Amino acid sequence: MTDGIDLDAKKSLQELGHSVSEKHYSNEDLIDGCISEYDIVVIRSATKLTADVIKANSENYSKLSLIIRAGVGVDNIDLSSASEYSVLVCNTPSASTNAVVELTIGHLISSCRRISTGNKKMREGVWAKKELRGSELRGKNLGLLGYGRIARGVADIARSIGMKIHAYDPYIQSDQNDCVFHDSAESLFSSCTHISIHCFLSEETRHLVDYEMISLMPQIGVDGIQCGNHIVNCARGGIIDEEGLYRALTNGKLTTASLDVFEVEPAIKSNLLQLDSFQATPHIGASTNEAQSRIGQEIVSIVQSHSKGETPDSCLNK
Amino acid sequence: MTDGIDLDAKKSLQELGHSVSEKHYSNEDLIDGCISEYDIVVIRSATKLTADVIKANSENYSKLSLIIRAGVGVDNIDLSSASEYSVLVCNTPSASTNAVVELTIGHLISSCRRISTGNKKMREGVWAKKELRGSELRGKNLGLLGYGRIARGVADIARSIGMKIHAYDPYIQSDQNDCVFHDSAESLFSSCTHISIHCFLSEETRHLVDYEMISLMPQIGVDGIQCGNHIVNCARGGIIDEEGLYRALTNGKLTTASLDVFEVEPAIKSNLLQLDSFQATPHIGASTNEAQSRIGQEIVSIVQSHSKGETPDSCLNK
Repeated sequence: MTDGIDLDAKKSLQELGHSVSEKHYSNEDLIDGCISEYDIVVIRSATKLTADVIKANSENYSKLSLIIRAGVGVDNIDLSSASEYSVLVCNTPSASTNAVVELTIGHLISSCRRISTGNKKMREGVWAKKELRGSELRGKNLGLLGYGRIARGVADIARSIGMKIHAYDPYIQSDQNDCVFHDSAESLFSSCTHISIHCFLSEETRHLVDYEMISLMPQIGVDGIQCGNHIVNCARGGIIDEEGLYRALTNGKLTTASLDVFEVEPAIKSNLLQLDSFQATPHIGASTNEAQSRIGQEIVSIVQSHSKGETPDSCLNK
Repeated sequence: MTDGIDLDAKKSLQELGHSVSEKHYSNEDLIDGCISEYDIVVIRSATKLTADVIKANSENYSKLSLIIRAGVGVDNIDLSSASEYSVLVCNTPSASTNAVVELTIGHLISSCRRISTGNKKMREGVWAKKELRGSELRGKNLGLLGYGRIARGVADIARSIGMKIHAYDPYIQSDQNDCVFHDSAESLFSSCTHISIHCFLSEETRHLVDYEMISLMPQIGVDGIQCGNHIVNCARGGIIDEEGLYRALTNGKLTTASLDVFEVEPAIKSNLLQLDSFQATPHIGASTNEAQSRIGQEIVSIVQSHSKGETPDSCLNK
């Protein structure tokens, strides 16, 4: 367990007879093959299992047969290299869904209503009631870039708020009611004052949301209210070009932006943090008691399947 | 208009032939009878029309016949004194409902997920990912103190998040499905890890939420998760005893508190602002473009009714 694990899950694994080691390794250690002595390695996002690392830990008497990503995104694991060495890769795809759904709605309201800015200014001794006029979500178009599990959960709550749901996802067939499907990201951005990002990071999506894309957003809600443009990203850093984001926030193309994920983390030196129109949290999408407990349960279940010689359901390279 | 007005509403009133003056008066001016020259005065929360002020502006050739509160709460207007002098008092009860509903949901998620604290810490150069473990709303009991328009709007969204709705309101008959009605505030607090306040400020509700009441909250969700206790107040300051709130936040009886309203405003010197578990906004419940536009439209409509000699629908002392 290189990036920590839920205590209950650790106990369950030990009770099942497994020996559990919790230790974080540096990139140098990883390249030296330090995890080849384990049958299974469980990582979150901090440990990067590149092609070189997987090679170094899979040759010469390696025991490694399973990598479990405690979470969803596997952009820190070289899948093809794992497959080449017959190392299975599993994730825990649904355990953190609701945690990210709720955080996304929180970011969306909090940024359009300037909650973090109000909180910050009050601590600076400023009662900024007049400057903090916000806008409502009801009656506006919410554009979802990616329409997987998390996006659909966000859509359900956003509908109850009274938003109209739009989506672009080239990998999903539109079988949804109450959702306007678009055939390009450009079309989605042109139609929506509010955008929330719910896709994976890949070469196809890296910097997909850049200054030009943001500039397509309409500024005026479909209800006729001048609500400005708003973007939330609780998915993965790197999908938004942060330089373009900064430019759009400072020249008025974008009214607020709210990010839980960044191109480089920890992102404490970003120039975005100078802007009151920007809201940030430190990659806490899955950081709930509930999600960590569910992730722990899924890890135990994956280990049990694997021990029995079965291929776990969430295996990504079977 | 002593506390400002929507520009479109001002234009509409002028086009209808009314003379509109926008000017804020001090308490001394008000006691001197400075608003007796107006037929109608429109206030928000900043102007306090006490019994003495209404008396001073209603005797001796006063023109004053209508007070419009641009907003909901009329705790800053002495209603019985207005009635004594035959001055009608109207508010705009539904114009800001949705603005407060959305802000309440924003405060609730933002505080349970530590969004403002994360944002503040990032600006201080601290990537506090590990310390900001939060809890989810889904599966928890939300207790609504007061079950009027705003509370019911909050309930609808909270249900879509997966919360179970509880309420206490001695003035409303329980005719709602999917809501557990309690016969006392103590019973409500004993049943709910999450409380949101939606009642008026009156002698009956002043300091109703004190340390003892908060101490009844259960700390563990009905889903078995140790989520702690959380309180949101976007209704009116003074309902919560802020000294008791501080004590509960510092000794662990309460996990987070999130306030838009305070006993004394502007509340920039509150000792609550020293706590990371506390989130605050400067009374921005109705501060949206949409609500201000709707309030303006309602004011125009009230003035039109009054000009025709009708009693406006929202009159509180007809």
